[in-house]
Amino acid sequence: MLELRLVQGSLLKKVMEAIKELVTDANFDCSASGFSLQAMDSSHVALVALLLRSEGFEHYRCDRNISMGMNLNNMSKMLKCAGNDDIITIKADDGSDTVTFMFESPSQDKISDFEMKLMDIDSEHLGIPEAEYHAIVRMPSSEFARICKDLSSIGDTVVISVTKEGVKFSTRGDIGTANIVCMQNTTVDKPEEATVIEMNEPVSLTFALRYMNSFTKATPLSNTVTISLSNELPVVVEYKIAEMGYVRFYLAPKIEEDEDETKPQV
Amino acid sequence: MLELRLVQGSLLKKVMEAIKELVTDANFDCSASGFSLQAMDSSHVALVALLLRSEGFEHYRCDRNISMGMNLNNMSKMLKCAGNDDIITIKADDGSDTVTFMFESPSQDKISDFEMKLMDIDSEHLGIPEAEYHAIVRMPSSEFARICKDLSSIGDTVVISVTKEGVKFSTRGDIGTANIVCMQNTTVDKPEEATVIEMNEPVSLTFALRYMNSFTKATPLSNTVTISLSNELPVVVEYKIAEMGYVRFYLAPKIEEDEDETKPQV
Amino acid sequence: MLELRLVQGSLLKKVMEAIKELVTDANFDCSASGFSLQAMDSSHVALVALLLRSEGFEHYRCDRNISMGMNLNNMSKMLKCAGNDDIITIKADDGSDTVTFMFESPSQDKISDFEMKLMDIDSEHLGIPEAEYHAIVRMPSSEFARICKDLSSIGDTVVISVTKEGVKFSTRGDIGTANIVCMQNTTVDKPEEATVIEMNEPVSLTFALRYMNSFTKATPLSNTVTISLSNELPVVVEYKIAEMGYVRFYLAPKIEEDEDETKPQV
Repeated sequence: MLELRLVQGSLLKKVMEAIKELVTDANFDCSASGFSLQAMDSSHVALVALLLRSEGFEHYRCDRNISMGMNLNNMSKMLKCAGNDDIITIKADDGSDTVTFMFESPSQDKISDFEMKLMDIDSEHLGIPEAEYHAIVRMPSSEFARICKDLSSIGDTVVISVTKEGVKFSTRGDIGTANIVCMQNTTVDKPEEATVIEMNEPVSLTFALRYMNSFTKATPLSNTVTISLSNELPVVVEYKIAEMGYVRFYLAPKIEEDEDETKPQV
Repeated sequence: MLELRLVQGSLLKKVMEAIKELVTDANFDCSASGFSLQAMDSSHVALVALLLRSEGFEHYRCDRNISMGMNLNNMSKMLKCAGNDDIITIKADDGSDTVTFMFESPSQDKISDFEMKLMDIDSEHLGIPEAEYHAIVRMPSSEFARICKDLSSIGDTVVISVTKEGVKFSTRGDIGTANIVCMQNTTVDKPEEATVIEMNEPVSLTFALRYMNSFTKATPLSNTVTISLSNELPVVVEYKIAEMGYVRFYLAPKIEEDEDETKPQV
Repeated sequence: MLELRLVQGSLLKKVMEAIKELVTDANFDCSASGFSLQAMDSSHVALVALLLRSEGFEHYRCDRNISMGMNLNNMSKMLKCAGNDDIITIKADDGSDTVTFMFESPSQDKISDFEMKLMDIDSEHLGIPEAEYHAIVRMPSSEFARICKDLSSIGDTVVISVTKEGVKFSTRGDIGTANIVCMQNTTVDKPEEATVIEMNEPVSLTFALRYMNSFTKATPLSNTVTISLSNELPVVVEYKIAEMGYVRFYLAPKIEEDEDETKPQV
C-alpha cells in the first residue's frame, strides 16, 4: 500500500514538465525515505535524477519498496488536470498494475481521481559516486535559462569557463560568435539573485546546447540553479525542490575536436 | 427597416465566438420581440439557439419580421474589428441583400461601417418543446470548461452523473480513467461560484466531449452555466447573456454500447 | 574606429523588429552626424529610411564615414539576446570585416559580446527630395496599426481619404466593404492620443495593405505616427524615435484601375 499526500501539488506538476522532454518512460522508486527516479534520456546521453524526500509530504505511507513504471507523457497529461493549488495524493495498492492520482481543490468541493496503467520498464540503477568538483557556480535559474536560449540562436554548443571572477558562456556559429560573462556578485538585495562561484581550479568545458536547454525546463522549480564542473566528469545541473529534494541533470562534456555527442561517464 | 443599437457591443462579439465553431451559415431572425438564431451544427448533431431580447438594446427598430442569412465566419471577421468598448448597431434596409454593422468608439471619434452580403439559407425552425428535466446543475462556467478540456486529454466521451450530493464527470481512454466530482456547494462568497443541484431523480448520461468543448466557447458570455439533464432527452447547456437572453446548446446523449454519435431528438 | 554607446538599448532592438520584415540585407551608414540606413524592401516597392542622430548616443565615436553591410535577420538574432534594460554598444575596428555588439546589464554583472560578420552589399543611395504634402495626418500609432490589421481581414488595399474633418480608411473584398473614419480630435487628455489633420487640399490615395501592415511593425517605437500624403507622391509613414531620429517608410500609391503594385517614385 502506497499513499503519498503532497499539499503543494504544483511541485509535482513542475517536476513533470522539467523531465518529460528528456525522459519518455521511467520507473519511479518509492521507499520509506522518499519518492525518486533515475533515468537516461532517450538518446542515452543525459541522466536525470529526481528525489522527493518523505519528510516533504504531509502524509507518506510506503509499506514496502516499490518501483512503478510510468509513461511520463501520460502522467503529465493527468497531472495537468490538477489545479495549481490542489493537493495531490499518489496511491497504489500492493500488486496493482495501476496508480491513482487524486486531486483535491483547496475548498474541497472538487475531487478528481485519475487512474493510470503502469508499465514494465527495464532499467539499471547507476551508482553516481560523490565527486569533488573543480568549480561550482550558483546563479539565478532564469538567467541561466536565458543564456542557454540566447546562445542557441547563434550556435549548437556552449563552452562554460569558470575563473575566480566569473563564469563565461561562449558559442560560435555561421553568423558569428557570442560570449556572455556573468561576474561573481554576492551583494544583491535578494540572495536568489546572487551569482556565487566556488573554484578550486579553472575549468573550461564544452556541452551540447540542446541538452542544456532541456535542463532549463526545470527553471520553475527553483529560483537558483547550481552547476558543478570538473574536467572529465559530467556536469551536474541541479535545481532544488523547496526543502524536499532536487532534480539533477548529468551531461558529459564534449571532447575537444570531437563533434559527436559522447555518452556520460557517471 | 432594421436598426438595432447595442451599447455593450462586446456581447455580440462574444456571441459570435461562442457559436461560429459549431455553425457555418445561419439565418438570424429579427422580430419585434428580439434578435434570434436557431441552427444545427454542420454535422447535424448539436443544436444552437440564441436569443437577444429587444429590451436589451438601447434602440430597437424592426418594422417587420425579417430573416437574414449570414456566414458566421465572415460576420465574425467584421465584428472582430469592433473595439471591446464600442457601441454596435446592426442596420438593414427593407429588401436589401446586405447588412451593415456600425461601430462607434466610446469617444465618438472613430466610426466604422462594415457592410456584409447576405445569403439565402434553407432552414427549418425546430420547435423545442418545454420539458421537465430530471436534474439541473448550475456551476461556474470556467469550471465546466476546465473539466471538459481536462477530460478530453484522457477520453472522447464524458459520462455526467448527478446525485443529490454532486455531479460526477467521468471518462475512459487508452491511458486510463478519470472521475471528477463537483460537490453541491452553496456557501460561497460570490453567488456565481456556487455549484447548485436541483434533482428529481438521478441521471447518468454519456456525451461526446468534442461537442461539449465547442459549447464552452461561450464561457466568456457568463460566469455560470446551467446543464439540464433527462434520460432520453438532449442535454441543454445554457449560458445566460446579461439580462437580455441566452445561448443554449442541445446535444443528444450517446446510447450505451453505441459508439456512434446520434442525432438529437429535439 | 567606431564606437557607439546607446543607453536605451531597447530602441535598437525595436528598430530591428520594425524593419527586418521588409529588408533582408542593408548597409548601415555611419558618419559624424549619425547612424543611418536607407534600403528598398526585397520586392523593390517600399523604401525604408532610418536615422539615429549622434546626439542621441551617450558616447559616439566615428573617425571616418563607414558603411557596414549587415544581414538584418542575423543582427536581430543577436540584438534579441540583449536585455530590455541593457546598454548596447556597437563597435568596429577600421578595416575589420566584423561588427561587435556589446550588451551591459544595468547592474554591470553581465557583459555580452556578440561578433557578427559583415557583408558586401551593393546599394545606391536615393536622394529623397523635400516635398510639400497635400495632407498630413498625425494619429496614435496603435490606432493606425489596428485599422490596417482590421481592414486586412476584409480586403487587400486601403483607400486613404483626407478631408478637414477626418481621415477615412476604406477597403473592399469578397465578403463586403469597410469604412473607418477617424475624426480630427485635439481635445484629448494626452497629446499622443490626438488625431490632428493638416490639409491643403483633399487627397484620396490607394495603397497595398500588405506594406502598410509591415510598416506598423514600428509601432512600439512611438506612440504616434505621421502619414504624409500627396497625389502622385509616395506616402510617408513616419515613426519618431525618442528625440534622436526616425524610421520612415515610403510607398507609392496604386494607380486607379491598376491592380498591380507600382514602384515608388522617390
